[in-house]
Amino acid sequence: MFMNLKRVLIGRPLKSTESGEQKLNKIKALAILSSDALSSVAYGPEQILLVLVTISAAAFWYSVPIGIGVLVLLAALVLSYRQIIFAYPHGGGAYVVSKENLGKYPGLVAGGSLLVDYILTVAVSVSAGTDAITSAFPSLHAHTVGIAVVFVCLITLLNLRGVTESASVLAYPVYLFVLALFILIGAGLYRIAIGDVAPELHTPVGTPIAGVSLFLLLRAFASGSSALTGVEAISNAIPNFKAPAPHNAAKTLAAMGLLLALLFSGIVFLAYYYGISPRAEVTVVSQIAEQTFGRGFLYFFIQGTTALILILAANTGYSAFPLLAVNLAKDKFIPRMFTLRGDRLGYSNGILMLGLLSIVLIVAFHGQTEHLIPLYAVGVFIPFTLSQTGMILKWIRQKPPGWMPKLLINAAGALISLTVSMMFFLTKFEQVWPVLIFLPLIIYAFLRINKHYLDVGEQLRLSTCEPVMPIEGNVVILPVSGITHVVEHSILYAQSLAADQIIAVHIPFEREEEAIFEEKWSKWMPDIRLVSLHSPYRSILHPLMKFIDTIERKARENHYQVTVIIPQFIPKKGWHNILHNQTSFTIRTALLYRKDVIVTTVPYHLKK
Amino acid sequence: MFMNLKRVLIGRPLKSTESGEQKLNKIKALAILSSDALSSVAYGPEQILLVLVTISAAAFWYSVPIGIGVLVLLAALVLSYRQIIFAYPHGGGAYVVSKENLGKYPGLVAGGSLLVDYILTVAVSVSAGTDAITSAFPSLHAHTVGIAVVFVCLITLLNLRGVTESASVLAYPVYLFVLALFILIGAGLYRIAIGDVAPELHTPVGTPIAGVSLFLLLRAFASGSSALTGVEAISNAIPNFKAPAPHNAAKTLAAMGLLLALLFSGIVFLAYYYGISPRAEVTVVSQIAEQTFGRGFLYFFIQGTTALILILAANTGYSAFPLLAVNLAKDKFIPRMFTLRGDRLGYSNGILMLGLLSIVLIVAFHGQTEHLIPLYAVGVFIPFTLSQTGMILKWIRQKPPGWMPKLLINAAGALISLTVSMMFFLTKFEQVWPVLIFLPLIIYAFLRINKHYLDVGEQLRLSTCEPVMPIEGNVVILPVSGITHVVEHSILYAQSLAADQIIAVHIPFEREEEAIFEEKWSKWMPDIRLVSLHSPYRSILHPLMKFIDTIERKARENHYQVTVIIPQFIPKKGWHNILHNQTSFTIRTALLYRKDVIVTTVPYHLKK
Repeated sequence: MFMNLKRVLIGRPLKSTESGEQKLNKIKALAILSSDALSSVAYGPEQILLVLVTISAAAFWYSVPIGIGVLVLLAALVLSYRQIIFAYPHGGGAYVVSKENLGKYPGLVAGGSLLVDYILTVAVSVSAGTDAITSAFPSLHAHTVGIAVVFVCLITLLNLRGVTESASVLAYPVYLFVLALFILIGAGLYRIAIGDVAPELHTPVGTPIAGVSLFLLLRAFASGSSALTGVEAISNAIPNFKAPAPHNAAKTLAAMGLLLALLFSGIVFLAYYYGISPRAEVTVVSQIAEQTFGRGFLYFFIQGTTALILILAANTGYSAFPLLAVNLAKDKFIPRMFTLRGDRLGYSNGILMLGLLSIVLIVAFHGQTEHLIPLYAVGVFIPFTLSQTGMILKWIRQKPPGWMPKLLINAAGALISLTVSMMFFLTKFEQVWPVLIFLPLIIYAFLRINKHYLDVGEQLRLSTCEPVMPIEGNVVILPVSGITHVVEHSILYAQSLAADQIIAVHIPFEREEEAIFEEKWSKWMPDIRLVSLHSPYRSILHPLMKFIDTIERKARENHYQVTVIIPQFIPKKGWHNILHNQTSFTIRTALLYRKDVIVTTVPYHLKK
Repeated sequence: MFMNLKRVLIGRPLKSTESGEQKLNKIKALAILSSDALSSVAYGPEQILLVLVTISAAAFWYSVPIGIGVLVLLAALVLSYRQIIFAYPHGGGAYVVSKENLGKYPGLVAGGSLLVDYILTVAVSVSAGTDAITSAFPSLHAHTVGIAVVFVCLITLLNLRGVTESASVLAYPVYLFVLALFILIGAGLYRIAIGDVAPELHTPVGTPIAGVSLFLLLRAFASGSSALTGVEAISNAIPNFKAPAPHNAAKTLAAMGLLLALLFSGIVFLAYYYGISPRAEVTVVSQIAEQTFGRGFLYFFIQGTTALILILAANTGYSAFPLLAVNLAKDKFIPRMFTLRGDRLGYSNGILMLGLLSIVLIVAFHGQTEHLIPLYAVGVFIPFTLSQTGMILKWIRQKPPGWMPKLLINAAGALISLTVSMMFFLTKFEQVWPVLIFLPLIIYAFLRINKHYLDVGEQLRLSTCEPVMPIEGNVVILPVSGITHVVEHSILYAQSLAADQIIAVHIPFEREEEAIFEEKWSKWMPDIRLVSLHSPYRSILHPLMKFIDTIERKARENHYQVTVIIPQFIPKKGWHNILHNQTSFTIRTALLYRKDVIVTTVPYHLKK
């Protein structure tokens, strides 16, 4: 039944050789990998205005030069990541680039911060999308957390079905959003061109404003840069592209950069020209749309596609997190299970873990995840900086033909990213300090896990000089609780194994019981030695463990191997298990964990 | 650490031979076994008045004859149970008596209704006591459920420490309550004697009242009889008494009957004479105490001990439930685990289960368990009736010297109990109907469990004619995932067992992996046959199970036994387990439950 449900939800399993079918063309790749970056157009310009409004509405003209600064940063990042795509065609992004060029620790810093960042992406974007919906339908407000959790579950499920299927579903809303914003920007520019917008709504660019400090402008720039999160996603997900993957990825990245630049500058300009002031209840995009179209069909179309793309931005996390996890798991920094492919060839453990952790975040913050945005932005710019720095070192070390311009591009990217990161720490420290706590904790966890795997590998490798212990003979211990078929079968089995010694062990709680059982046994199996361990405290485990200790010590001297044979009933129906004391299970677990003996389970399948 | 906590909470384990120290003298036995019965004095008289008040306050004089009726019923029950104690000196009460004299089904009806009843006792009495406390301190009202749950946990813990310890603790409040009520009744009677109470407060006995029907009086009588719940507890708990157990139990029963009769008639009489009318916020006992003493120390003493005894009434359930469960479990009607004695020689599974289920009831009813009282009363009178009827048949069949008066006593008990049961169904059907649903369900469960145990017993018994399958040889299957120490050890072990055939099984997900591993294997272990099962869907379990099927079919024809050897890492620290895919565990569970093969686990203890 569970299997059938799974089939319906995620589809039939795919063969490993079918992985070619799970590759993306450029149109679909752009949709699922750029939803995060594009969706930030919905809140990036607003973030700039929110800082400027603390001075006065007259200061809004600064959003134009700040917007241009963001575009420069975007251009530097797109060019830099284009170079990373060609240099690391197998993906891995900031983690792999930093690790290979800067070393283990910078790599782990980049990997750790991206890992957390993708979880934040999912939580923040789904919460933001849900907010947009509950703002439209206030009666749903009480269920915000529930609705957000349902969305996360749906996106998780879609991703478990495989990359191509999720891309097919998600492409429509992404392109609809792009279309909607182009209509909005086009219509807005047309209104300005025909002089339908009063020019006195905004202060001219260059008007001197009292009280504007460099600190404030940097803070506004840093806030605006949060629109650039998600630019790195394509470089992580190159393996999902159709061949030639690096070329297709580079073209997709260029298309994304262009779309993002157009939409971002359009919205910034319209907001400036309309003289729009950020308001708590209504977003900037919504104000622009209302002023341009009134509350008609186009207004609701823009609002609807915006809500949708905010939710779908989460999908970028789903594309990048599992691939990053595979890279970290292959390097033995996180549990090995993240390298396993699921039925639909996606890395299903990564997908499930991302869904789970983002649900935990949403529930923990009651769906109010807005103040996680700066945390999430800084978590992107740290790996940006590290990977660009790594590329600089790579060009200097390898000096391929034409390396100078490449170096300059990456150096520009590194410098701007570093500046933005520093600005976040300087201007929004009260919101980004948790990074300084959890990043060291995550790296500590990575190192502990890594040490464990290396230790295990070393212990298992045959090249170690530990001599192989020969097995000269076998001692079999058989705990028995009565004279039954299953005991008989176990004894026959022990005899068939040519064990050198077979000892049946009975653990009576009362002296009378002991004598009666010994009497019965000697009549039934006179050849098998029976040891009675009287247990005054009514524990089975304790006397058995002590007895096995004694036998094991003697056996080890003679290079004998001790095997404990445990008969176990297998009831026909699951509920029958509660009718049997789970003694076999308890003994087996205790023995495996505490003693160096082999444990053999002889099942006895009850027929009714 | 868990063990240490357990030591602190419930004390050091006791040897089975120390069970003599866990026996009760009469003083302690009276305290813990009569708390339920005595506590009903706190609400029994009130229940009578609550029915009469539906006519008029003038009808309150009927409480005197109804009270006398209850005393007659009490006398009949005490005498009847005295005979049961001597006839069944090993305890077991209504279940054993009904089963032995009336047959299996009446026995199960009696056992099932008592089992549920003791759970209701605990839930109802703890809730009532908590109500009394939260009435006194209204700020605690929001925490009623929490407080009740804490009380249940405390009583459970006390009982896990053993019968004598709980009796030592509980004796004080019980005797304080008795003392408090005697002071109250004495003072009340004294005030009446010196003419301090106006005689016009009550209607004289015998005043004709319009509208009083027989139905109403029977309903009032049935309500008053709920004060007699708990009378049977002593007959269930005879094994807890010091020798000579039956004599001590009989004396304790007589003392309990006398105390209950005195307190009950005292309260009924004072309530009548003072002309007290039941009120929602203040109990009848509280009104009597206030009128007698005013709101002074004695008033609060009476209120405090009443709250305490209501909570401790739960303890009667704890004394009787585990012993009843042992009897049902020995007869294979409930899971065998209820026959196990804990560290302190109490039947700890029964104690824990009772605590757990009553917490479930308290939480499910939000601590408002008053309307469970009739249900709980009817659950007592059904077994009362059955056990007395059983005794009648016993006397008729065995005819011991002087059986006639004994028969008459039990016949009187049976008749009155039957009448009271019928009255509950006739007059309070809307509250007692659930008995007709859950009693058949419980009995169905008893029978299903019984059938399973009988089936198992039959399959295990050696006397069945099923021929023993000889084992002519052994085939060992060894799933391997790499060339490691643990695989090497497993192979050496298989060889030492003189297995006739050893097959290593490798399950690669990719074709390239397959060839590389086969190459390596043939160099490392050329003598051991390696089978590669390519798994295109990346499942380990599925191809392995199919392969084992094939081998098993062939092996069975030749009477060969198939053993699957599963190497398993045992990490040094618990958290390391999440770093290893639990493949060994999954394979073992699947094999044991689905195939008839023996499963051997070779542990490899990681040293760091």
